[in-house]
Amino acid sequence: MNITSGNVVSPKGFKAAGAHIGLKKSKPDGNIGLTSNSKDMAVITSDVPAVASGCFTTNIVKAAPVLWDMEKTANKIKGIVANSGNANACTGEQGLKDAADTAARLAELEGVKAENILVCSTGVIGVNLPMDTILNGVESVHALVTDKSEGGESAAQAIMTTDTHAKKASAEIDIGGKTVTIGGMAKGSGMINPNMATMLCFITTDCAISKPMLDKALKACVKDSFNMICVDGDMSTNDTVLCLANGMADNNEITDENADYAEFKKALMYVCRTLAIMCADDGEGATKLIEANVKGARDDEDARKIALSVVSSSLLKAAMFGEDANWGRVLCAMGYSGAEFDPMSVTIVFKSENGEIKLMDSGKPIVFDEEKAADILSAHKIYIDMLLNEGKAEATAWGCDLTYDYVKINGDYRS
Amino acid sequence: MNITSGNVVSPKGFKAAGAHIGLKKSKPDGNIGLTSNSKDMAVITSDVPAVASGCFTTNIVKAAPVLWDMEKTANKIKGIVANSGNANACTGEQGLKDAADTAARLAELEGVKAENILVCSTGVIGVNLPMDTILNGVESVHALVTDKSEGGESAAQAIMTTDTHAKKASAEIDIGGKTVTIGGMAKGSGMINPNMATMLCFITTDCAISKPMLDKALKACVKDSFNMICVDGDMSTNDTVLCLANGMADNNEITDENADYAEFKKALMYVCRTLAIMCADDGEGATKLIEANVKGARDDEDARKIALSVVSSSLLKAAMFGEDANWGRVLCAMGYSGAEFDPMSVTIVFKSENGEIKLMDSGKPIVFDEEKAADILSAHKIYIDMLLNEGKAEATAWGCDLTYDYVKINGDYRS
Repeated sequence: MNITSGNVVSPKGFKAAGAHIGLKKSKPDGNIGLTSNSKDMAVITSDVPAVASGCFTTNIVKAAPVLWDMEKTANKIKGIVANSGNANACTGEQGLKDAADTAARLAELEGVKAENILVCSTGVIGVNLPMDTILNGVESVHALVTDKSEGGESAAQAIMTTDTHAKKASAEIDIGGKTVTIGGMAKGSGMINPNMATMLCFITTDCAISKPMLDKALKACVKDSFNMICVDGDMSTNDTVLCLANGMADNNEITDENADYAEFKKALMYVCRTLAIMCADDGEGATKLIEANVKGARDDEDARKIALSVVSSSLLKAAMFGEDANWGRVLCAMGYSGAEFDPMSVTIVFKSENGEIKLMDSGKPIVFDEEKAADILSAHKIYIDMLLNEGKAEATAWGCDLTYDYVKINGDYRS
Repeated sequence: MNITSGNVVSPKGFKAAGAHIGLKKSKPDGNIGLTSNSKDMAVITSDVPAVASGCFTTNIVKAAPVLWDMEKTANKIKGIVANSGNANACTGEQGLKDAADTAARLAELEGVKAENILVCSTGVIGVNLPMDTILNGVESVHALVTDKSEGGESAAQAIMTTDTHAKKASAEIDIGGKTVTIGGMAKGSGMINPNMATMLCFITTDCAISKPMLDKALKACVKDSFNMICVDGDMSTNDTVLCLANGMADNNEITDENADYAEFKKALMYVCRTLAIMCADDGEGATKLIEANVKGARDDEDARKIALSVVSSSLLKAAMFGEDANWGRVLCAMGYSGAEFDPMSVTIVFKSENGEIKLMDSGKPIVFDEEKAADILSAHKIYIDMLLNEGKAEATAWGCDLTYDYVKINGDYRS
């Protein structure tokens, strides 16, 4: 696998563009809401219809575009429209019609049916889409799609809400002498939680792969990436990961779990994890990235529960912001995770580029050097290692600290 | 039932005191850590051994005093020692010994066995108790216990950590011509969550009631009070509600679910709910009290899940701090609560002393007057009413907003 610095247009046969169509409001100070750019619509197209796969929010309140995509990913897909600034969530029957009309507009331009187009929205909840703006926008952004790198760059910017930077990742693999490329982009920020968030992720690949194998690979990768991050514990109505595979790399089609599948999955995992960690790192108001590593858990599920519980604890997240080695909050969050373990066998270590410090050893608290701990916690990326004595299962989760700015951003998001 | 303004010494035969024994550190500015007073140990005694009942944290990491009390509430209880400033949690084997030694000290002074004494601790996690200070403290605070009101007042102050005020409640009922009194005190603040928090609550009553009936009443009352509040979603290692009933009101002992039991339970519910709401209202950094009312849910469990999910949402809590009518976050939190309902049938209303405003009507978003909404949300107590169309079940939960001060308090709690 080669890690490259591409985006969603890197795989063969994909084009994209992002532009401002008028959904994000300008503020008197010239800034655009809370986002760092004004682009608010992205379009991605594939030269040939692509096999599609999706992972969606488990919130029972699902935004209209999520309901649309859950059904349409069964079809071959020719393009995706994604807008920021308005989530088309909690918008009633009108929202469903608006999602369908948006798809129909791009379908018309691509010469396919609406059912061959996917749609995604992110932004404010509970406000109907301004459809004139949307429909005109689809046409104008579609006119801009290009397979040049800037197409993928502008598309990645156009899906941002409170993200501070665009998130892209890509990788190449060799399958039977053919170069297969995977490119992705994501937006995260608030509401990032286990089982995803107002998290949108779009992955393109020119790999030839069957629908069942693509579904299998995406599900496995999302489980160990986007489902292992947390910003604030809220789970959005709009969370979506979409993957399109158009087969243009001309490799032998992957139809079972052979070595090619393993190679493809490894690269897909890299793209998913890279984008997921970027989302955790860029959580609303975040100043620190927290990586929680659990080892020695009874089983995989327990390991995941513990890792996620720790990165989700408001108390721990606030302590990390304060660079306070309050490891008791780690053990506490482990304890209410729902996993089973013996607290008297737990070892806890805090690490960073500045060193490491053991705070609890097999259930015994250790008197530690506060100065050294403060130095370790002054780094941007903090590792919290938890060693249990129950079995051999491991898991890693990522989160961020809880800061004044999180409160500020979310105290007045709509205005 | 008469609502009175008493405390834990109001019921016959109870004495209490609270004082500074040296667990809370003085700061250079003369303030004591983050608490508003320096008292750090409370002792409650009953003139005669009392029937005891307890509800405890469901966190599998349980502080040493919790493990002690879970066992000893089976016995008749003569007294309780509670300290603030140190939680005796995550303290290994030494912590268990320290809890037992603390109980033994009060037992000696009361002329009973250690197993007839309960102990509670709250404060910093992961540091062993300074036992010389504790043991001398038990003796000096025990010397101060009194049945005068100030005994209960000082005890309520002594269990505070980041609480901004002491929390007390009391009520009287008539059982067969005898006046039965219930008095309570609690400390809450951070870590308040479903299934309790670093929440300590001590309830005394002179009611004559059997152990099984007291257990039954306390369990039912805690379910609808302390288990329905949330500050930050963290569940502490130390949460404890203890109730002592010494029988000195001389009523006919309550031994089954008769009218006397119903009357007693009603008064106990009043004391529990009053203290629980005080805890939510005084959440760390809180500026607002949020009451979430669910009606029309499929069953009680779903109603509870929805109400708690809404008061637990960081996004909604931050919006309430910002006085932003972001009702989409209400529907979103309902949706990931785990309850089943049709989002297209949900009605959402925000209310306060300044009026009420409907934001979603049977699944349809309503264009609303932002100025009126802002006026309603400017009040201290905000009601969020959610009407479903699934059944007849109802539930209420209480929480608070998420503020800069929450982050500040928890960013550097230990120092």
